[in-house]
Amino acid sequence: MFSYKLLLSYDGTHYSGWQMQPNAPSIQEKVQDVLKVVLRADIKIVGSGRTDAGVHAYGQVAHFRHSEAVDRERLRIALNGMLPRDIRVLSIEEVPRSFHAQYSAIGKEYHYHLYLDRVMDPFRRLYCWHVHERLNVENLKEAAKLFLGTHDFTSFANEAHAGSASRDPIRTIRRLEVIEMAGGLRLEFEGDGFLYKMVRNIAGMLVEIAAGHHSIEEIPLIFAAKDRRQSARAAPPQGLFLMAVEYPALDFLKDDFDR
Amino acid sequence: MFSYKLLLSYDGTHYSGWQMQPNAPSIQEKVQDVLKVVLRADIKIVGSGRTDAGVHAYGQVAHFRHSEAVDRERLRIALNGMLPRDIRVLSIEEVPRSFHAQYSAIGKEYHYHLYLDRVMDPFRRLYCWHVHERLNVENLKEAAKLFLGTHDFTSFANEAHAGSASRDPIRTIRRLEVIEMAGGLRLEFEGDGFLYKMVRNIAGMLVEIAAGHHSIEEIPLIFAAKDRRQSARAAPPQGLFLMAVEYPALDFLKDDFDR
Repeated sequence: MFSYKLLLSYDGTHYSGWQMQPNAPSIQEKVQDVLKVVLRADIKIVGSGRTDAGVHAYGQVAHFRHSEAVDRERLRIALNGMLPRDIRVLSIEEVPRSFHAQYSAIGKEYHYHLYLDRVMDPFRRLYCWHVHERLNVENLKEAAKLFLGTHDFTSFANEAHAGSASRDPIRTIRRLEVIEMAGGLRLEFEGDGFLYKMVRNIAGMLVEIAAGHHSIEEIPLIFAAKDRRQSARAAPPQGLFLMAVEYPALDFLKDDFDR
Repeated sequence: MFSYKLLLSYDGTHYSGWQMQPNAPSIQEKVQDVLKVVLRADIKIVGSGRTDAGVHAYGQVAHFRHSEAVDRERLRIALNGMLPRDIRVLSIEEVPRSFHAQYSAIGKEYHYHLYLDRVMDPFRRLYCWHVHERLNVENLKEAAKLFLGTHDFTSFANEAHAGSASRDPIRTIRRLEVIEMAGGLRLEFEGDGFLYKMVRNIAGMLVEIAAGHHSIEEIPLIFAAKDRRQSARAAPPQGLFLMAVEYPALDFLKDDFDR
Protein backbone atom coordinates (compact mmCIF):
# COMPACT_ATOMS: atom_id res chain seq x y z
CA MET A 1 0.00 0.00 0.00
CA PHE A 2 1.31 3.42 -0.97
CA SER A 3 0.16 6.75 0.45
CA TYR A 4 0.15 10.03 -1.45
CA LYS A 5 -0.37 13.61 -0.40
CA LEU A 6 -2.07 15.98 -2.85
CA LEU A 7 -1.57 19.74 -2.71
CA LEU A 8 -4.65 21.38 -4.26
CA SER A 9 -5.71 24.89 -5.25
CA TYR A 10 -9.29 25.70 -6.17
CA ASP A 11 -11.70 28.49 -6.87
CA GLY A 12 -14.66 27.51 -4.69
CA THR A 13 -17.20 29.72 -6.46
CA HIS A 14 -18.99 26.95 -8.34
CA TYR A 15 -18.86 24.22 -5.69
CA SER A 16 -20.84 23.20 -2.66
CA GLY A 17 -17.57 23.08 -0.72
CA TRP A 18 -14.86 20.50 -0.16
CA GLN A 19 -16.99 17.77 1.32
CA MET A 20 -19.01 15.33 -0.73
CA GLN A 21 -22.74 15.58 -0.33
CA PRO A 22 -25.71 14.32 -2.29
CA ASN A 23 -26.92 16.37 -5.26
CA ALA A 24 -24.24 19.06 -5.19
CA PRO A 25 -20.83 19.16 -6.84
CA SER A 26 -17.99 19.14 -4.31
CA ILE A 27 -14.25 19.54 -4.76
CA GLN A 28 -13.60 16.21 -3.02
CA GLU A 29 -15.91 14.39 -5.40
CA LYS A 30 -14.38 15.97 -8.51
CA VAL A 31 -10.84 15.05 -7.49
CA GLN A 32 -11.80 11.57 -6.30
CA ASP A 33 -13.78 10.78 -9.45
CA VAL A 34 -10.86 11.76 -11.67
CA LEU A 35 -8.42 9.73 -9.54
CA LYS A 36 -10.67 6.69 -9.87
CA VAL A 37 -10.66 6.98 -13.64
CA VAL A 38 -6.92 7.59 -13.96
CA LEU A 39 -5.85 4.88 -11.51
CA ARG A 40 -8.70 2.49 -12.37
CA ALA A 41 -9.26 1.77 -8.70
CA ASP A 42 -11.73 2.65 -6.00
CA ILE A 43 -9.79 5.55 -4.48
CA LYS A 44 -11.01 7.52 -1.46
CA ILE A 45 -9.46 10.87 -0.69
CA VAL A 46 -9.37 12.49 2.75
CA GLY A 47 -8.95 16.24 3.07
CA SER A 48 -7.32 18.25 5.84
CA GLY A 49 -10.75 19.60 6.63
CA ARG A 50 -13.78 20.90 4.88
CA THR A 51 -14.06 24.24 3.18
CA ASP A 52 -17.59 25.61 2.82
CA ALA A 53 -19.43 26.49 -0.38
CA GLY A 54 -17.76 29.48 -2.02
CA VAL A 55 -14.59 29.24 0.09
CA HIS A 56 -11.34 29.08 -1.89
CA ALA A 57 -8.03 27.29 -1.40
CA TYR A 58 -4.46 27.96 -2.45
CA GLY A 59 -3.11 25.07 -0.40
CA GLN A 60 -5.66 22.41 0.55
CA VAL A 61 -4.12 19.03 1.34
CA ALA A 62 -5.62 15.58 0.86
CA HIS A 63 -4.28 12.05 0.99
CA PHE A 64 -5.18 8.77 -0.66
CA ARG A 65 -3.87 5.23 -0.56
CA HIS A 66 -3.28 2.96 -3.51
CA SER A 67 -2.06 -0.62 -3.92
CA GLU A 68 0.47 0.36 -6.59
CA ALA A 69 3.22 2.95 -6.79
CA VAL A 70 2.33 5.79 -9.14
CA ASP A 71 4.47 8.03 -11.33
CA ARG A 72 3.58 11.21 -9.46
CA GLU A 73 4.43 13.66 -12.22
CA ARG A 74 2.45 11.75 -14.83
CA LEU A 75 -0.44 11.42 -12.41
CA ARG A 76 -0.42 15.16 -11.71
CA ILE A 77 -0.53 15.95 -15.42
CA ALA A 78 -3.29 13.40 -16.04
CA LEU A 79 -5.40 14.75 -13.16
CA ASN A 80 -5.03 18.37 -14.28
CA GLY A 81 -5.90 17.31 -17.80
CA MET A 82 -9.22 15.88 -16.63
CA LEU A 83 -10.16 18.20 -13.78
CA PRO A 84 -12.19 21.36 -14.38
CA ARG A 85 -9.89 24.38 -14.71
CA ASP A 86 -11.00 25.84 -11.37
CA ILE A 87 -9.39 22.90 -9.50
CA ARG A 88 -5.64 22.27 -9.87
CA VAL A 89 -3.32 19.65 -8.41
CA LEU A 90 -0.17 21.59 -7.55
CA SER A 91 1.93 18.64 -6.45
CA ILE A 92 1.83 14.99 -5.40
CA GLU A 93 4.19 13.58 -2.78
CA GLU A 94 4.62 10.09 -1.44
CA VAL A 95 4.06 10.05 2.33
CA PRO A 96 4.39 7.44 5.10
CA ARG A 97 1.33 5.30 5.67
CA SER A 98 0.86 7.01 9.02
CA PHE A 99 0.21 10.34 7.25
CA HIS A 100 -3.38 11.52 7.56
CA ALA A 101 -4.36 14.82 5.90
CA GLN A 102 -6.66 15.75 8.79
CA TYR A 103 -5.19 14.11 11.88
CA SER A 104 -1.52 14.72 11.08
CA ALA A 105 -2.06 18.46 10.52
CA ILE A 106 -0.39 20.65 13.16
CA GLY A 107 -1.35 24.04 11.79
CA LYS A 108 -3.35 25.95 9.21
CA GLU A 109 -3.19 29.34 7.58
CA TYR A 110 -6.28 31.18 6.34
CA HIS A 111 -6.62 34.60 4.74
CA TYR A 112 -9.82 36.62 4.79
CA HIS A 113 -10.20 39.45 2.23
CA LEU A 114 -12.25 42.58 2.95
CA TYR A 115 -13.00 45.03 0.14
CA LEU A 116 -13.71 48.52 1.43
CA ASP A 117 -13.81 50.89 -1.56
CA ARG A 118 -17.20 52.20 -2.55
CA VAL A 119 -17.36 50.54 -5.96
CA MET A 120 -16.52 46.85 -6.00
CA ASP A 121 -13.71 45.84 -8.32
CA PRO A 122 -15.52 43.41 -10.68
CA PHE A 123 -12.45 41.17 -10.75
CA ARG A 124 -12.58 40.69 -6.98
CA ARG A 125 -16.33 40.28 -6.55
CA LEU A 126 -16.01 36.53 -5.99
CA TYR A 127 -12.95 36.77 -3.71
CA CYS A 128 -13.75 39.47 -1.13
CA TRP A 129 -16.44 40.57 1.27
CA HIS A 130 -17.56 44.01 0.13
CA VAL A 131 -18.12 45.92 3.37
CA HIS A 132 -20.12 49.09 2.73
CA GLU A 133 -19.74 50.59 6.19
CA ARG A 134 -16.86 52.87 7.04
CA LEU A 135 -14.37 50.93 9.19
CA ASN A 136 -11.99 52.14 11.87
CA VAL A 137 -8.94 50.10 10.90
CA GLU A 138 -7.06 50.96 14.12
CA ASN A 139 -9.92 49.51 16.16
CA LEU A 140 -9.94 46.44 13.97
CA LYS A 141 -6.21 45.92 14.57
CA GLU A 142 -6.62 46.41 18.33
CA ALA A 143 -9.51 43.95 18.47
CA ALA A 144 -7.57 41.39 16.45
CA LYS A 145 -4.93 41.23 19.20
CA LEU A 146 -7.52 39.88 21.66
CA PHE A 147 -7.96 36.75 19.55
CA LEU A 148 -4.27 35.85 19.64
CA GLY A 149 -3.13 33.02 21.86
CA THR A 150 -4.98 30.11 23.42
CA HIS A 151 -8.72 30.47 24.09
CA ASP A 152 -11.93 28.51 24.35
CA PHE A 153 -13.43 29.54 20.99
CA THR A 154 -16.93 28.14 21.62
CA SER A 155 -18.48 31.59 21.07
CA PHE A 156 -16.84 31.76 17.65
CA ALA A 157 -17.60 28.26 16.40
CA ASN A 158 -20.68 26.83 14.72
CA GLU A 159 -21.79 23.25 15.13
CA ALA A 160 -20.39 21.40 12.12
CA HIS A 161 -23.69 19.58 11.71
CA ALA A 162 -26.54 18.30 13.83
CA GLY A 163 -25.38 15.56 16.15
CA SER A 164 -21.69 16.08 15.46
CA ALA A 165 -19.41 14.93 18.24
CA SER A 166 -18.50 17.83 20.47
CA ARG A 167 -14.87 18.69 19.93
CA ASP A 168 -12.38 20.31 22.22
CA PRO A 169 -13.05 24.05 21.70
CA ILE A 170 -9.58 25.16 22.85
CA ARG A 171 -7.49 26.50 20.00
CA THR A 172 -4.36 28.63 19.67
CA ILE A 173 -4.10 31.45 17.13
CA ARG A 174 -0.38 32.03 16.63
CA ARG A 175 -0.68 34.96 14.22
CA LEU A 176 -3.54 37.29 13.26
CA GLU A 177 -2.26 40.12 11.10
CA VAL A 178 -4.24 42.88 9.44
CA ILE A 179 -2.56 43.78 6.13
CA GLU A 180 -3.68 46.82 4.16
CA MET A 181 -3.96 46.10 0.46
CA ALA A 182 -5.31 48.00 -2.56
CA GLY A 183 -9.02 48.58 -1.93
CA GLY A 184 -9.21 46.83 1.41
CA LEU A 185 -7.69 44.60 4.07
CA ARG A 186 -6.40 41.07 4.31
CA LEU A 187 -6.74 39.28 7.66
CA GLU A 188 -4.09 36.59 7.99
CA PHE A 189 -4.80 33.82 10.49
CA GLU A 190 -2.34 31.13 11.56
CA GLY A 191 -3.06 28.62 14.27
CA ASP A 192 -2.91 25.02 15.38
CA GLY A 193 -6.40 24.44 14.01
CA PHE A 194 -9.71 26.18 13.58
CA LEU A 195 -13.20 25.17 14.65
CA TYR A 196 -16.07 25.12 12.17
CA LYS A 197 -16.65 28.64 10.75
CA MET A 198 -14.23 30.07 13.33
CA VAL A 199 -12.27 32.25 10.87
CA ARG A 200 -15.43 33.68 9.31
CA ASN A 201 -17.00 34.25 12.72
CA ILE A 202 -13.93 36.12 13.97
CA ALA A 203 -13.74 38.14 10.71
CA GLY A 204 -17.44 39.04 11.14
CA MET A 205 -16.82 40.12 14.75
CA LEU A 206 -13.80 42.24 13.81
CA VAL A 207 -15.81 44.05 11.12
CA GLU A 208 -18.67 44.70 13.56
CA ILE A 209 -16.20 46.25 15.98
CA ALA A 210 -14.47 48.30 13.29
CA ALA A 211 -17.89 49.54 12.14
CA GLY A 212 -18.70 50.65 15.69
CA HIS A 213 -21.54 48.20 16.39
CA HIS A 214 -19.60 46.45 19.15
CA SER A 215 -16.82 47.62 21.41
CA ILE A 216 -13.45 45.99 21.95
CA GLU A 217 -14.34 45.60 25.62
CA GLU A 218 -17.12 43.14 24.74
CA ILE A 219 -14.70 40.55 23.35
CA PRO A 220 -13.57 39.06 26.71
CA LEU A 221 -17.23 38.82 27.76
CA ILE A 222 -18.16 37.07 24.54
CA PHE A 223 -15.30 34.58 25.00
CA ALA A 224 -16.46 33.96 28.60
CA ALA A 225 -20.09 33.40 27.58
CA LYS A 226 -19.12 30.33 25.49
CA ASP A 227 -22.22 30.94 23.43
CA ARG A 228 -22.16 31.31 19.65
CA ARG A 229 -25.23 33.58 19.79
CA GLN A 230 -23.23 36.27 21.60
CA SER A 231 -20.89 36.99 18.73
CA ALA A 232 -21.41 38.54 15.30
CA ARG A 233 -22.68 36.98 12.11
CA ALA A 234 -20.15 35.01 10.09
CA ALA A 235 -18.39 36.91 7.32
CA PRO A 236 -19.51 35.58 3.91
CA PRO A 237 -17.63 32.61 2.41
CA GLN A 238 -16.16 34.18 -0.74
CA GLY A 239 -13.59 36.24 1.22
CA LEU A 240 -11.99 33.15 2.77
CA PHE A 241 -8.90 31.34 1.43
CA LEU A 242 -7.27 28.24 2.94
CA MET A 243 -3.63 29.12 2.26
CA ALA A 244 -1.66 26.25 3.76
CA VAL A 245 -1.83 23.20 5.99
CA GLU A 246 1.20 22.47 8.13
CA TYR A 247 2.51 18.98 8.96
CA PRO A 248 5.51 17.65 10.87
CA ALA A 249 8.62 17.34 8.70
CA LEU A 250 8.51 14.20 6.57
CA ASP A 251 12.25 14.08 6.24
CA PHE A 252 12.50 10.53 5.05
CA LEU A 253 11.12 11.75 1.72
CA LYS A 254 13.85 12.11 -0.83
CA ASP A 255 12.50 14.75 -3.17
CA ASP A 256 10.00 17.51 -3.37
CA PHE A 257 8.00 18.54 -6.39
CA ASP A 258 8.13 22.08 -7.65
CA ARG A 259 4.80 23.66 -8.41
CA MET B 1 -28.80 68.55 -24.05
CA PHE B 2 -26.29 67.27 -21.49
CA SER B 3 -23.39 64.94 -22.18
CA TYR B 4 -21.94 62.45 -19.71
CA LYS B 5 -18.82 60.34 -19.70
CA LEU B 6 -18.98 56.93 -18.00
CA LEU B 7 -15.87 55.21 -16.66
CA LEU B 8 -16.53 51.46 -16.66
CA SER B 9 -14.81 48.34 -15.39
CA TYR B 10 -15.92 44.87 -16.41
CA ASP B 11 -15.02 41.22 -16.34
CA GLY B 12 -15.58 40.24 -19.97
CA THR B 13 -15.74 36.48 -19.31
CA HIS B 14 -19.49 36.13 -19.70
CA TYR B 15 -20.06 38.61 -22.53
CA SER B 16 -19.84 38.62 -26.30
CA GLY B 17 -17.75 41.78 -26.02
CA TRP B 18 -18.47 45.49 -25.75
CA GLN B 19 -20.46 45.90 -28.91
CA MET B 20 -24.15 45.12 -29.21
CA GLN B 21 -25.01 42.26 -31.50
CA PRO B 22 -28.07 40.10 -32.05
CA ASN B 23 -28.57 37.09 -29.77
CA ALA B 24 -25.56 37.64 -27.52
CA PRO B 25 -25.23 39.64 -24.30
CA SER B 26 -22.86 42.60 -24.70
CA ILE B 27 -21.52 45.06 -22.15
CA GLN B 28 -22.86 47.99 -24.17
CA GLU B 29 -26.36 46.54 -24.18
CA LYS B 30 -26.34 45.82 -20.43
CA VAL B 31 -25.26 49.36 -19.56
CA GLN B 32 -27.58 50.98 -22.08
CA ASP B 33 -30.59 48.96 -20.99
CA VAL B 34 -30.08 49.92 -17.36
CA LEU B 35 -29.58 53.61 -18.29
CA LYS B 36 -32.87 53.53 -20.23
CA VAL B 37 -34.73 52.17 -17.22
CA VAL B 38 -33.16 54.56 -14.70
CA LEU B 39 -33.48 57.71 -16.85
CA ARG B 40 -36.75 56.64 -18.52
CA ALA B 41 -35.46 57.77 -21.88
CA ASP B 42 -34.15 56.24 -25.08
CA ILE B 43 -30.45 56.52 -24.26
CA LYS B 44 -27.71 55.43 -26.64
CA ILE B 45 -24.20 54.92 -25.35
CA VAL B 46 -21.06 55.16 -27.45
CA GLY B 47 -17.88 53.43 -26.30
CA SER B 48 -14.24 54.37 -26.90
CA GLY B 49 -13.98 51.24 -29.02
CA ARG B 50 -15.03 47.65 -28.92
CA THR B 51 -13.50 45.00 -26.74
CA ASP B 52 -13.89 41.44 -27.99
CA ALA B 53 -15.61 38.53 -26.27
CA GLY B 54 -13.68 37.57 -23.13
CA VAL B 55 -11.60 40.78 -23.08
CA HIS B 56 -11.68 42.73 -19.81
CA ALA B 57 -11.64 46.42 -18.90
CA TYR B 58 -10.47 48.40 -15.91
CA GLY B 59 -11.08 51.73 -17.64
CA GLN B 60 -13.43 51.59 -20.61
CA VAL B 61 -15.05 54.96 -21.42
CA ALA B 62 -18.45 55.62 -22.96
CA HIS B 63 -20.60 58.71 -23.42
CA PHE B 64 -24.30 59.37 -23.66
CA ARG B 65 -26.50 62.42 -24.13
CA HIS B 66 -29.64 63.25 -22.23
CA SER B 67 -32.17 66.09 -22.34
CA GLU B 68 -32.01 66.65 -18.58
CA ALA B 69 -29.22 67.19 -16.10
CA VAL B 70 -28.65 64.13 -13.88
CA ASP B 71 -27.43 63.78 -10.30
CA ARG B 72 -24.30 61.88 -11.26
CA GLU B 73 -23.67 60.25 -7.89
CA ARG B 74 -27.25 59.03 -7.54
CA LEU B 75 -27.16 57.78 -11.12
CA ARG B 76 -23.91 55.88 -10.48
CA ILE B 77 -25.41 54.18 -7.43
CA ALA B 78 -28.64 53.35 -9.28
CA LEU B 79 -26.76 51.87 -12.24
CA ASN B 80 -24.50 49.75 -10.06
CA GLY B 81 -27.56 48.59 -8.14
CA MET B 82 -29.14 47.25 -11.32
CA LEU B 83 -26.13 46.11 -13.34
CA PRO B 84 -24.73 42.59 -13.02
CA ARG B 85 -21.85 42.51 -10.56
CA ASP B 86 -19.28 41.88 -13.29
CA ILE B 87 -19.93 45.35 -14.75
CA ARG B 88 -19.31 48.45 -12.59
CA VAL B 89 -19.70 52.15 -13.25
CA LEU B 90 -16.66 53.69 -11.57
CA SER B 91 -17.57 57.33 -12.18
CA ILE B 92 -19.79 59.66 -14.19
CA GLU B 93 -18.60 63.08 -15.34
CA GLU B 94 -20.37 65.82 -17.23
CA VAL B 95 -18.49 66.59 -20.45
CA PRO B 96 -18.83 69.20 -23.20
CA ARG B 97 -21.20 68.29 -26.03
CA SER B 98 -18.21 68.01 -28.34
CA PHE B 99 -16.89 65.06 -26.30
CA HIS B 100 -17.06 61.76 -28.15
CA ALA B 101 -15.82 58.60 -26.39
CA GLN B 102 -14.33 57.22 -29.59
CA TYR B 103 -13.33 60.25 -31.69
CA SER B 104 -12.04 62.43 -28.84
CA ALA B 105 -9.69 59.70 -27.57
CA ILE B 106 -6.01 60.54 -28.00
CA GLY B 107 -4.52 57.45 -26.42
CA LYS B 108 -5.19 54.03 -24.95
CA GLU B 109 -3.46 51.71 -22.54
CA TYR B 110 -3.80 47.93 -22.72
CA HIS B 111 -2.20 45.21 -20.61
CA TYR B 112 -1.74 41.65 -21.77
CA HIS B 113 -1.13 38.95 -19.13
CA LEU B 114 0.92 35.83 -19.83
CA TYR B 115 0.98 32.98 -17.31
CA LEU B 116 4.11 30.83 -17.61
CA ASP B 117 4.21 28.48 -14.61
CA ARG B 118 3.49 24.85 -15.30
CA VAL B 119 0.30 24.61 -13.27
CA MET B 120 -2.24 27.36 -13.95
CA ASP B 121 -3.33 29.36 -10.91
CA PRO B 122 -7.11 28.63 -10.84
CA PHE B 123 -7.78 32.22 -9.79
CA ARG B 124 -6.11 33.57 -12.93
CA ARG B 125 -7.45 31.08 -15.46
CA LEU B 126 -9.89 33.64 -16.90
CA TYR B 127 -7.41 36.53 -16.89
CA CYS B 128 -4.21 35.20 -18.47
CA TRP B 129 -2.98 33.29 -21.47
CA HIS B 130 -1.36 30.10 -20.14
CA VAL B 131 1.67 29.60 -22.36
CA HIS B 132 3.03 26.06 -21.98
CA GLU B 133 6.21 26.56 -23.97
CA ARG B 134 9.41 27.73 -22.37
CA LEU B 135 9.98 31.39 -23.25
CA ASN B 136 13.19 33.34 -23.61
CA VAL B 137 12.17 36.52 -21.82
CA GLU B 138 15.23 38.46 -23.00
CA ASN B 139 14.29 37.75 -26.62
CA LEU B 140 10.73 38.82 -25.88
CA LYS B 141 11.96 42.12 -24.45
CA GLU B 142 14.26 42.71 -27.43
CA ALA B 143 11.48 41.95 -29.90
CA ALA B 144 9.07 44.28 -28.06
CA LYS B 145 11.37 47.22 -28.78
CA LEU B 146 10.84 46.78 -32.54
CA PHE B 147 7.13 47.58 -32.11
CA LEU B 148 7.77 50.92 -30.42
CA GLY B 149 7.24 54.10 -32.39
CA THR B 150 5.24 54.82 -35.54
CA HIS B 151 4.62 52.00 -38.01
CA ASP B 152 2.18 50.76 -40.59
CA PHE B 153 0.58 47.97 -38.51
CA THR B 154 -1.32 46.31 -41.39
CA SER B 155 0.45 42.99 -40.72
CA PHE B 156 -0.75 43.09 -37.10
CA ALA B 157 -4.36 44.12 -37.66
CA ASN B 158 -7.43 42.08 -38.52
CA GLU B 159 -10.32 43.41 -40.55
CA ALA B 160 -12.90 44.56 -38.04
CA HIS B 161 -15.65 42.98 -40.13
CA ALA B 162 -16.36 42.23 -43.76
CA GLY B 163 -16.82 45.40 -45.78
CA SER B 164 -15.56 47.68 -43.01
CA ALA B 165 -14.14 50.96 -44.27
CA SER B 166 -10.37 50.66 -44.54
CA ARG B 167 -8.73 52.76 -41.85
CA ASP B 168 -5.38 54.42 -41.77
CA PRO B 169 -3.07 51.62 -40.55
CA ILE B 170 -0.39 53.98 -39.19
CA ARG B 171 -0.23 53.94 -35.41
CA THR B 172 2.28 54.97 -32.75
CA ILE B 173 3.12 52.77 -29.76
CA ARG B 174 4.56 55.11 -27.14
CA ARG B 175 5.35 52.45 -24.55
CA LEU B 176 5.60 48.67 -24.64
CA GLU B 177 7.00 47.35 -21.39
CA VAL B 178 7.51 43.76 -20.32
CA ILE B 179 6.93 43.48 -16.58
CA GLU B 180 7.78 40.28 -14.71
CA MET B 181 5.09 39.32 -12.21
CA ALA B 182 4.39 36.26 -10.06
CA GLY B 183 3.92 33.32 -12.41
CA GLY B 184 4.35 35.23 -15.63
CA LEU B 185 4.64 38.48 -17.56
CA ARG B 186 2.55 41.57 -18.15
CA LEU B 187 2.92 43.36 -21.47
CA GLU B 188 1.97 47.01 -21.09
CA PHE B 189 1.01 48.83 -24.30
CA GLU B 190 0.39 52.56 -24.59
CA GLY B 191 -0.27 54.28 -27.87
CA ASP B 192 -2.34 56.81 -29.77
CA GLY B 193 -4.73 54.07 -30.81
CA PHE B 194 -4.78 50.42 -31.76
CA LEU B 195 -6.18 48.68 -34.83
CA TYR B 196 -8.56 45.76 -34.51
CA LYS B 197 -6.86 42.86 -32.64
CA MET B 198 -3.52 44.69 -32.86
CA VAL B 199 -2.55 44.17 -29.20
CA ARG B 200 -3.42 40.47 -29.29
CA ASN B 201 -1.63 40.00 -32.62
CA ILE B 202 1.52 41.67 -31.30
CA ALA B 203 1.32 39.65 -28.05
CA GLY B 204 0.95 36.48 -30.14
CA MET B 205 3.98 37.44 -32.25
CA LEU B 206 6.12 38.22 -29.19
CA VAL B 207 5.33 34.82 -27.66
CA GLU B 208 6.18 33.03 -30.92
CA ILE B 209 9.54 34.79 -30.96
CA ALA B 210 10.21 34.09 -27.28
CA ALA B 211 9.34 30.42 -27.89
CA GLY B 212 11.87 30.28 -30.74
CA HIS B 213 9.39 29.74 -33.61
CA HIS B 214 10.27 33.07 -35.22
CA SER B 215 13.39 35.22 -35.07
CA ILE B 216 13.57 38.88 -34.14
CA GLU B 217 15.01 39.57 -37.59
CA GLU B 218 11.72 38.60 -39.20
CA ILE B 219 9.82 41.47 -37.62
CA PRO B 220 10.93 44.22 -40.05
CA LEU B 221 10.09 41.91 -42.96
CA ILE B 222 6.63 41.20 -41.53
CA PHE B 223 5.99 44.94 -41.08
CA ALA B 224 7.12 45.51 -44.68
CA ALA B 225 4.87 42.77 -46.05
CA LYS B 226 1.72 44.62 -44.89
CA ASP B 227 -0.02 41.26 -44.82
CA ARG B 228 -1.81 39.91 -41.76
CA ARG B 229 -1.06 36.34 -42.82
CA GLN B 230 2.67 36.90 -42.32
CA SER B 231 2.41 37.39 -38.54
CA ALA B 232 1.54 35.04 -35.70
CA ARG B 233 -1.87 33.97 -34.43
CA ALA B 234 -3.60 36.38 -32.09
CA ALA B 235 -3.08 35.79 -28.38
CA PRO B 236 -6.36 34.62 -26.76
CA PRO B 237 -8.80 37.26 -25.49
CA GLN B 238 -8.83 36.49 -21.76
CA GLY B 239 -5.32 37.89 -21.22
CA LEU B 240 -6.26 41.36 -22.49
CA PHE B 241 -7.31 44.32 -20.32
CA LEU B 242 -8.27 47.80 -21.53
CA MET B 243 -6.72 49.83 -18.74
CA ALA B 244 -7.39 53.46 -19.69
CA VAL B 245 -8.54 55.76 -22.47
CA GLU B 246 -6.85 59.13 -22.68
CA TYR B 247 -8.60 62.38 -23.68
CA PRO B 248 -7.50 66.02 -23.92
CA ALA B 249 -7.86 67.86 -20.60
CA LEU B 250 -11.46 68.89 -19.98
CA ASP B 251 -10.39 71.66 -17.66
CA PHE B 252 -13.67 73.51 -17.69
CA LEU B 253 -15.04 70.70 -15.53
CA LYS B 254 -15.14 71.75 -11.91
CA ASP B 255 -14.92 68.46 -10.06
CA ASP B 256 -13.83 64.92 -10.42
CA PHE B 257 -15.43 61.89 -8.89
CA ASP B 258 -13.40 59.56 -6.77
CA ARG B 259 -13.75 55.86 -7.55
